[in-house]
Amino acid sequence: MDIVILGAGNVATIFGKLLFQKKHKILQIVSKTPAHAATLAMQLQATFTTNIKDVDTRADLYLFALPDNLIQETAAHPVFKNKFLVHTSGSIPAAVFKNFTESFGVLWPIQSLNAHVEKLPEFPLAITIGNQSVLSDLMKLCNDLTDAQIVVLNDEEKRQLHLAAVFASNFSNYLYQMAFAYCREQNIPFSLLIPLIHETAVRIHDSIEPFAMQTGPAIRNDSVTIQKQQALLVQKPQYAKLYDLFTECIRDELLKNKSLNG
Amino acid sequence: MDIVILGAGNVATIFGKLLFQKKHKILQIVSKTPAHAATLAMQLQATFTTNIKDVDTRADLYLFALPDNLIQETAAHPVFKNKFLVHTSGSIPAAVFKNFTESFGVLWPIQSLNAHVEKLPEFPLAITIGNQSVLSDLMKLCNDLTDAQIVVLNDEEKRQLHLAAVFASNFSNYLYQMAFAYCREQNIPFSLLIPLIHETAVRIHDSIEPFAMQTGPAIRNDSVTIQKQQALLVQKPQYAKLYDLFTECIRDELLKNKSLNG
Repeated sequence: MDIVILGAGNVATIFGKLLFQKKHKILQIVSKTPAHAATLAMQLQATFTTNIKDVDTRADLYLFALPDNLIQETAAHPVFKNKFLVHTSGSIPAAVFKNFTESFGVLWPIQSLNAHVEKLPEFPLAITIGNQSVLSDLMKLCNDLTDAQIVVLNDEEKRQLHLAAVFASNFSNYLYQMAFAYCREQNIPFSLLIPLIHETAVRIHDSIEPFAMQTGPAIRNDSVTIQKQQALLVQKPQYAKLYDLFTECIRDELLKNKSLNG
Repeated sequence: MDIVILGAGNVATIFGKLLFQKKHKILQIVSKTPAHAATLAMQLQATFTTNIKDVDTRADLYLFALPDNLIQETAAHPVFKNKFLVHTSGSIPAAVFKNFTESFGVLWPIQSLNAHVEKLPEFPLAITIGNQSVLSDLMKLCNDLTDAQIVVLNDEEKRQLHLAAVFASNFSNYLYQMAFAYCREQNIPFSLLIPLIHETAVRIHDSIEPFAMQTGPAIRNDSVTIQKQQALLVQKPQYAKLYDLFTECIRDELLKNKSLNG
């Protein structure tokens, strides 16, 4: 396919390089930052522009790898009228394009992608389509982008999965930060926790639910330890609230499982 | 050293095997469950008993790899009077032994250990000592148990690190469970999130604080997405409370960092 890529950030760079390797022709990079646009364009043997009026109108596909808040306003430009428009955002529905064209969709990489890492992590792709006619094209593109799982979702399902990803990734990263900050404050090496963090995540598999691997005072219903830990947090109201809420959730789940099992 | 191991669970099995390989003599396994005691004793060429009165009194070291709530009551038995007592718990202080002996300590593996996995994960060890005289013995034992980081903590520091581990591991595992339950309810494959979960954890390193890798709507201060996600959670008050609290924490941290940087 002949492709114009809007954006020159992590997703634009990674998708651009992968598609270029698979012999797609990248016609043009469109980015407001000339240095980024030029750098990526050179790598992909494409032209570039910083001005949306100069977008190459001959492409088969316009790939919007833009920040969430720029997708709709950019797509509203007349140059994209009735073109094949695809964005890559987890939180924006495909329907953001529906007033501008009939051919549209989303290719959402379910991964935290960073163009500067040496080895890309595995990334599943979620396809969301505006109508059936674009499905086979998007499926082919997916196969050129990833060897991992590919799934077709509607906007509602994508919204749900994005929320689940926020819990599983963004909030767990914040828990790591809490542990980091706490260790730093207490002058204890955070590095001691890194193997545990890795192991906790890596033992998550498809075949067994994470709760089966739950450890810690809450799942043991160890009130003595829980009270001692709550006492450590009296000066930290937000940490204390999170502690109490997680403990309550884990205990509730425990009760639920017990009542299910007898 | 000649060692008696109390317990026949995950830590007893793993520590027992590692110490046996390093030519320590495991004299005896003490466990209330005869089958477990016998199985482990056979593997370690040891005897076993289910009765605390029959504990072999000739050992250099009594390793208490017992559930938290059994450590103190077990150690109170006269058979352990003035012996070298060590337990392996993160949440129990070394001082639990102080009324029974002067030689005591803790070897806490900072890892979620499962005796049934093929390849043991890396596990750092935290040493807590009752008095200076046991430090060199515990340090030698640690070197026989792990190639990972070893640190000496006092009871207070150990308590702090254990709390940080609860946030970093137990609570993050519960977040994975929430994502799992949410996906199951919505009939979306949870497997799509596994590479993201792995990547989020594995990119945690010593040299950079986790907050530098924070992604998601809260760190972008993306109020539109946050409100939409809150709306998805109206039927789930606990999930909603966690969502709001994390979002508040991440935004606070963002403001704090901004004010630090300018």
